[in-house]
Amino acid sequence: MSLLVVGSMAFDSVKTPFGAVEEALGGSALYFSLSAGFFNDVSLVAVVGEDFPESEITFLNSRNVDTRGLQRTAGKTFRWKGEYTYELNEAHTLATHLNVFETFSPEIPEPYRNSDYVFLGNIDPELQLRVLRQVNQPKLVGLDTMNFWIERKRDRLLDVLKHVDILTINDGEARQLTGEVNLVKAAREIRDYGPRILIIKRGEYGVLMFNGSDIFAAPAYPLETVFDPTGAGDSFGGGLMGYLSNVGNLDDETLRRAIVFGSVMASYNVEDFSMNRLRSLTYREIEKRFKLFKALTHFEDL
Amino acid sequence: MSLLVVGSMAFDSVKTPFGAVEEALGGSALYFSLSAGFFNDVSLVAVVGEDFPESEITFLNSRNVDTRGLQRTAGKTFRWKGEYTYELNEAHTLATHLNVFETFSPEIPEPYRNSDYVFLGNIDPELQLRVLRQVNQPKLVGLDTMNFWIERKRDRLLDVLKHVDILTINDGEARQLTGEVNLVKAAREIRDYGPRILIIKRGEYGVLMFNGSDIFAAPAYPLETVFDPTGAGDSFGGGLMGYLSNVGNLDDETLRRAIVFGSVMASYNVEDFSMNRLRSLTYREIEKRFKLFKALTHFEDL
Repeated sequence: MSLLVVGSMAFDSVKTPFGAVEEALGGSALYFSLSAGFFNDVSLVAVVGEDFPESEITFLNSRNVDTRGLQRTAGKTFRWKGEYTYELNEAHTLATHLNVFETFSPEIPEPYRNSDYVFLGNIDPELQLRVLRQVNQPKLVGLDTMNFWIERKRDRLLDVLKHVDILTINDGEARQLTGEVNLVKAAREIRDYGPRILIIKRGEYGVLMFNGSDIFAAPAYPLETVFDPTGAGDSFGGGLMGYLSNVGNLDDETLRRAIVFGSVMASYNVEDFSMNRLRSLTYREIEKRFKLFKALTHFEDL
Repeated sequence: MSLLVVGSMAFDSVKTPFGAVEEALGGSALYFSLSAGFFNDVSLVAVVGEDFPESEITFLNSRNVDTRGLQRTAGKTFRWKGEYTYELNEAHTLATHLNVFETFSPEIPEPYRNSDYVFLGNIDPELQLRVLRQVNQPKLVGLDTMNFWIERKRDRLLDVLKHVDILTINDGEARQLTGEVNLVKAAREIRDYGPRILIIKRGEYGVLMFNGSDIFAAPAYPLETVFDPTGAGDSFGGGLMGYLSNVGNLDDETLRRAIVFGSVMASYNVEDFSMNRLRSLTYREIEKRFKLFKALTHFEDL
């Protein structure tokens, strides 16, 4: 199945207790597509400024990412500056410069409009809706969002969610969206908004998937070296959607494997700053860690 | 294998967002032994005051708990008063009345001194050491502790840990004990103190076990009705040690199953106040939820 992602491309300046990077490559669409590219071809729709290096676009192309939908606009690329304390679960935003993102309106190129699987990365719900208007009845729509949009654009977000099959969201955001503290109850309510599959991301504690009456829990891989959590959620989304679109069905076993592949991608991504670890990653390493996840969670049934 | 537990018996007054109980039965040894009694006979060493109802002791006896080591002393039973907010992971202590616990010195009755498996519940490390001096080379020693003892009796705690095989502790305490934020590193350091098996409890996020180079992650069961987290850790310990002592070996598969049984017991315990849920629980229900844990975590390997 073909896979389309719309999201942000950015230069991130990030400080963690383990180091810092200035103006390193980032953004939801970039992490997503680099991660998904290990499993399937990805069509990318996003915007960059004149300062975005052509060599990085060539690099993405070499990793199964079709960049014909990448707009290059006069001005500077979106910039984000953030910091993490030892509690690596939450980013503290220090500065956001929208730059070319301020006037971005996603244009889906004709050849992408029949994409089977569409992932709406974490951007303004207005833009997510605009994307949906341009695609022809995709087989599956995934969406990621964040507290910022839940606070400011709740109604528009609820409009998009009506058309979403898989929502990925973190636990604090699930509670914020519903006003319900208990996650099982919050999950039921969110699925009443539209998404039949809800994946709740819990950082170092892993993920919970709710799908019909089925619940699946996957831990995060216990790592000794977590340098930078930036992009963990997007790498997860890329692994998830990349695998799902490659297999082309949504049975329970496929979904569970897709979540583990997503978790593998996130676990590698946090091992270094920016996309550095994903750059050097091989599919053999992905398979190796998938098997470690199996060893991490396996026990004999009664 | 025979199983001995030493810990506290208490009357707890607990308030959670879902209700409150006054002077309900509690204490680490009580939760532990009621939970372990589903898997094996348990010998209990603890102290109660004159106000402790004889009928509850008879009840424990009916649940495979041998109470010959239970001291009954002039005065009142230990009392604890605490509160939980919506963040059910952490108890806020409002009052502690040691009462008969103030002068308690555990006396291990002669027939218990050859116990194979010994569990030192969450009490003063001085008392835990006194217990160890009275038992004859047990095959396995388990220990639970808390931030209160790490702060006040760190050196004595480190003395006990030298003799401990399995330590159960929560994630905040593991960090507090070692000064190391990364759990994988903290786990390695703690195992240098003595325990070869470390089980880190993470409340609603489940547990992590470190054993040699092996790591096992078990989620907590996602529950819609969590009324009272009091005793969750002790019920976990009871299921863990009850199952381990019943099987009598420590191979990796047995340990993993023991952790799942512990998680099952904790998940039932929090569904009602005090020990109410454990009172009505049946072994058939335990098996049923064990299978739900399997369904919750299973995925096909590559």
